Amino acid sequence: MTYVSPSTGCEIKAVLFDTFGSVVDWRSGVARDVAAFAKHHRIGVDAVAFADAWRAKYEPSMEPIRNRSREFVPLDQLHMENLHATVAEFDLNAADFDNRDIADLNAAWERLDPWQDSVAGLAELGRHVIVGPLSNANLALLLRMALRAKLPWTVIVGSDATRAYKPTLQAYQSMAWILRLDPGQVMLTAAHNRDLTFAQRAGLGTAFIPRPTELGPGQTKDLTAEGDWDLVCASILDLASRFADE
Amino acid sequence: MTYVSPSTGCEIKAVLFDTFGSVVDWRSGVARDVAAFAKHHRIGVDAVAFADAWRAKYEPSMEPIRNRSREFVPLDQLHMENLHATVAEFDLNAADFDNRDIADLNAAWERLDPWQDSVAGLAELGRHVIVGPLSNANLALLLRMALRAKLPWTVIVGSDATRAYKPTLQAYQSMAWILRLDPGQVMLTAAHNRDLTFAQRAGLGTAFIPRPTELGPGQTKDLTAEGDWDLVCASILDLASRFADE
Repeated sequence: MTYVSPSTGCEIKAVLFDTFGSVVDWRSGVARDVAAFAKHHRIGVDAVAFADAWRAKYEPSMEPIRNRSREFVPLDQLHMENLHATVAEFDLNAADFDNRDIADLNAAWERLDPWQDSVAGLAELGRHVIVGPLSNANLALLLRMALRAKLPWTVIVGSDATRAYKPTLQAYQSMAWILRLDPGQVMLTAAHNRDLTFAQRAGLGTAFIPRPTELGPGQTKDLTAEGDWDLVCASILDLASRFADE
Repeated sequence: MTYVSPSTGCEIKAVLFDTFGSVVDWRSGVARDVAAFAKHHRIGVDAVAFADAWRAKYEPSMEPIRNRSREFVPLDQLHMENLHATVAEFDLNAADFDNRDIADLNAAWERLDPWQDSVAGLAELGRHVIVGPLSNANLALLLRMALRAKLPWTVIVGSDATRAYKPTLQAYQSMAWILRLDPGQVMLTAAHNRDLTFAQRAGLGTAFIPRPTELGPGQTKDLTAEGDWDLVCASILDLASRFADE
């Protein structure tokens, strides 16, 4: 069966995914590696608070690149800058640690576990359409994440290929261009309504999958679909079923 | 087993492949599609001569981009420009054909058959290292080629990500950078001694696999290894065996 997006009027040829939060659980993965780092170095740190503080710098750190006041640099570099800032915020000194240990902690973003439905869902969906990330992460990060978590992407294009960070329209449209698809033939799947809002503005199809524990047990945002998305699905497996032969 | 390149001194983490000629047979694939195009349009054309003439424009068309007298454009665009020039060379007029038929003929480069050992060899090699193309082709072309020919790449990075054409050193070194590997951890496999010469200069490991019929039955070049390559292999399966557990 082919799936025609009601909003774009096109048959969807590629279903791309926001990755952090939508496909993998960044919060517990990063906290796990922060805890291991703290234990190894015998320092007391609230690992979950550290993960949240590190992630809180994610959006602001891309902003100068989005508004072109800074040249594009790949996300692993921003993660490293943000890690240094977070270390300082927790009254630690990065210079007290071996550079290799800091680099290894920065690679925590490559060691994130998929949500329970992700691997099977992507594999099933990949039988019908091109399946890949549409993430702010760079290719090397996404590749290592995929190898570890066994994410069965058809293709991986990183933000270092588009040289644009979501939610600029260029990030969505350049991805379609790289794949030689019309924006309307591409669907973004995300657990974040804001991401979908901009994808829709860029002309893509949209699918929402809630990830109600991404931000922890007290999560209050993105619990439900807040836009007119093509599809609202309980899981990636549920999404794949919309593309399956009847 | 891990494989340490004697020339770079590094363990090889990624084995990348020249694609046209080394992994897939461009000449018979393009000639097949030219013949089908000619038959459909009831024109008499020597399809193999057309394929050779089209391919003859490949290297010269990248030269202005390599020497920076032209901005980077992706290979599918160069193929299209070269197709128009070849059509004219054969005393045909591109305007006589539907644009969609011309675009479909240009996509012949996506419909190339793998050499007999390619699919099994890449699959076996992919159990041990990252396996991908290091081609002048852009991602969309390589992706569609891989989907059709079932090439089991671990990852596809196109020249539209490095924005550099081989054999500039930048093409090899940017690929390693995108993968976050040292050049010495990357090996280029190719059927072309010239490609390997520049890969070696760029600091990569090298493997040669002869493809003695790439240019047809009368092929005189690249029949044997002409440099001090790390490996000289009879096939990609043979190459994979050098990375296999003993």
